Amino acid sequence: MNTAVSDIEVIKAKKTKIHDVDFDHLSFGSTFSDHMLECNYKDGKWQAPKVVPYQPITLDPSAKIFHYGQSVFEGMKAYKDAKNDIYLFRPLDNWKRLNISSKRLAIPEVPESYFMEGLKTLLKLDSEWIPKKEGSSLYIRPFIFATGKGFHASPANEYKFIIACAPSGAYFAGKVKVLIEETYSRSANGGVGFAKAGGNYAGQFYPTQLAVEKGYQQVIWTDDNTHEYIEEAGAMNIFIRINDTLITGPTSDRILDGITRKSIIELAKAEGIAVEVRKISVHEVVAAAKNGSLKEMFGAGTAAVISPISGFGYHGEDFDIPELENTYASLMKKRITDIQTNKCEDPFGWRFKVE
Amino acid sequence: MNTAVSDIEVIKAKKTKIHDVDFDHLSFGSTFSDHMLECNYKDGKWQAPKVVPYQPITLDPSAKIFHYGQSVFEGMKAYKDAKNDIYLFRPLDNWKRLNISSKRLAIPEVPESYFMEGLKTLLKLDSEWIPKKEGSSLYIRPFIFATGKGFHASPANEYKFIIACAPSGAYFAGKVKVLIEETYSRSANGGVGFAKAGGNYAGQFYPTQLAVEKGYQQVIWTDDNTHEYIEEAGAMNIFIRINDTLITGPTSDRILDGITRKSIIELAKAEGIAVEVRKISVHEVVAAAKNGSLKEMFGAGTAAVISPISGFGYHGEDFDIPELENTYASLMKKRITDIQTNKCEDPFGWRFKVE
Ligand SMILES: Cc1ncc(COP(=O)(O)O)c(C=O)c1O
Ligand SMILES: Cc1ncc(COP(=O)(O)O)c(C=O)c1O
Repeated sequence: MNTAVSDIEVIKAKKTKIHDVDFDHLSFGSTFSDHMLECNYKDGKWQAPKVVPYQPITLDPSAKIFHYGQSVFEGMKAYKDAKNDIYLFRPLDNWKRLNISSKRLAIPEVPESYFMEGLKTLLKLDSEWIPKKEGSSLYIRPFIFATGKGFHASPANEYKFIIACAPSGAYFAGKVKVLIEETYSRSANGGVGFAKAGGNYAGQFYPTQLAVEKGYQQVIWTDDNTHEYIEEAGAMNIFIRINDTLITGPTSDRILDGITRKSIIELAKAEGIAVEVRKISVHEVVAAAKNGSLKEMFGAGTAAVISPISGFGYHGEDFDIPELENTYASLMKKRITDIQTNKCEDPFGWRFKVE
Repeated sequence: MNTAVSDIEVIKAKKTKIHDVDFDHLSFGSTFSDHMLECNYKDGKWQAPKVVPYQPITLDPSAKIFHYGQSVFEGMKAYKDAKNDIYLFRPLDNWKRLNISSKRLAIPEVPESYFMEGLKTLLKLDSEWIPKKEGSSLYIRPFIFATGKGFHASPANEYKFIIACAPSGAYFAGKVKVLIEETYSRSANGGVGFAKAGGNYAGQFYPTQLAVEKGYQQVIWTDDNTHEYIEEAGAMNIFIRINDTLITGPTSDRILDGITRKSIIELAKAEGIAVEVRKISVHEVVAAAKNGSLKEMFGAGTAAVISPISGFGYHGEDFDIPELENTYASLMKKRITDIQTNKCEDPFGWRFKVE
């Protein structure tokens, strides 16, 4: 299945909303660009994608998205360099993961060309919406949901695939304090935790609210069986530095295989940092915090990029992570954003020029 | 908070669709009645509910239901007796469970009066839609989903609560053959399995499709840690009869606390049947199938009522459950439907007359 850019129909918005936007004070994911990609699945196949004005969606009350949570999504960013060229970061990995998620949720997979050519057409049309300010970018949200009808718990026969864009600033205001969760869980063995399925996120809201009430910003999930092993955060994978070794848990069917995570692993290795991908127990982290070998913790994900963690709560006790100069977190953040924004060479071939 | 029936605004449909419906050949949940209850949460509270024509819903592409699966639902039925009086079955339990689900999904709870008075107003207006044919009923779907906007994984600030109705026939055509699942799981310890959260259902579709390809109609879920204990089916709790004892697993944070299940437990006890609520291992069921003491298995849920199971697959082997006369399944089905449809006394006080 191949669709050239010229094949993607474009219906332009009558007027732009861009002049209402204050690009110097962008929040995260709350202002939307003028257009979106729209593609419908019906009669057993994805129909031709179209770029259309960003506009409301009308659905029957029995559309399965409202009842059975049949939805998946992705999160990406577009960047502009000094020459106004547009770049993406490893976009094919997002397309692949979208389809991995879709398969687990019984949603039909989207052809590569629909995703990539659709996205490129959209970005070129809305290129003015890509912020140039450091720390800002155009957050891109591809998502698919069940539009087929009926109060019967079975996969829908119709779906909508949309890509929408939101010029965005930082995800977190500063360092975050996290709570290592001992009661609630994010995902089951044999479940959908490895997928970017909508339901995985709603399930985190209540435990996160409880953590926020206790003074934390994020929850660090542990395995649902023993609560002894660190899994990941709400929208970030977790890295832990003990002495000079950088450790992150292995991916599994419970954990999202983050693109930032795997990039950090490679970037750290290229810097000569010792990296271990292995199960890491809460007890090891607590012991390291107590004996002073816990140097850093940080989250890694597209939205937050690298998010340094100032400390964690566990079993009623709070552990601070002392301030450090020249952190791995800041080094990794510089390395990855320099590649993303075309400020340095890209020996890995991760940067993708939109043209 | 109290709302009398007279307080619920009603906007009537211009014309009825009822003449297009073949009430003798109803499928399940695919035809919708003329009206629905609609209630919006905004500015920190549920606004006044209204009964309006069944009609499409328009949402922003960034509405959180599309991204984060923040939704819950219920399933109920309305019945008509010979005198055309309308009955519900334990409706307050559905309202309570809706709020239990909502709490876990960080959705604001709905006041009892909005739910009950709204439902009664709707049912009286659409009373012609309640089938009288044996085995048919008006399936009622209360549901709530996040309408608030934004690409930020956090609870929405706006929601929609709807009750829609579908005149429906049987959920399953006949006996079902089930697969006891050994790889995939429905829910995690500390997760949302006890809630009727949308995402719990989407996660079951793919494993169920795999089971269907192997010739089974339904999956019996087991615990995600060992896959050794029977949990429940996609939309039914499970009962197992070994010799003359009726066994069902205990509820937990992984299992939906079914209203049919708890009614069956009481009905069976009232019949003098020995009932055990305890963990039941797959090995015990397999051993019972082999030595002939496994007399029956059946599912219990609002949609399917009582669904007899003809056999199960486990670990590559198929086990048939021999036909039996005078089953507990048929006795329980008669007892519960007689109460539901006002064909007998209701010593439990479960029947609820809509007036
Ligand atoms: C649960 C979860 N873990 C980790 C991540 C980080 O993944 P990525 O680096 O691909 O954005 C995300 C966000 O995408 C996520 O939602
Ligand atoms: C997962 C699950 N288990 C069990 C049931 C049965 O519950 P109830 O008897 O209240 O309909 C349902 C259906 O509501 C369900 O969705």
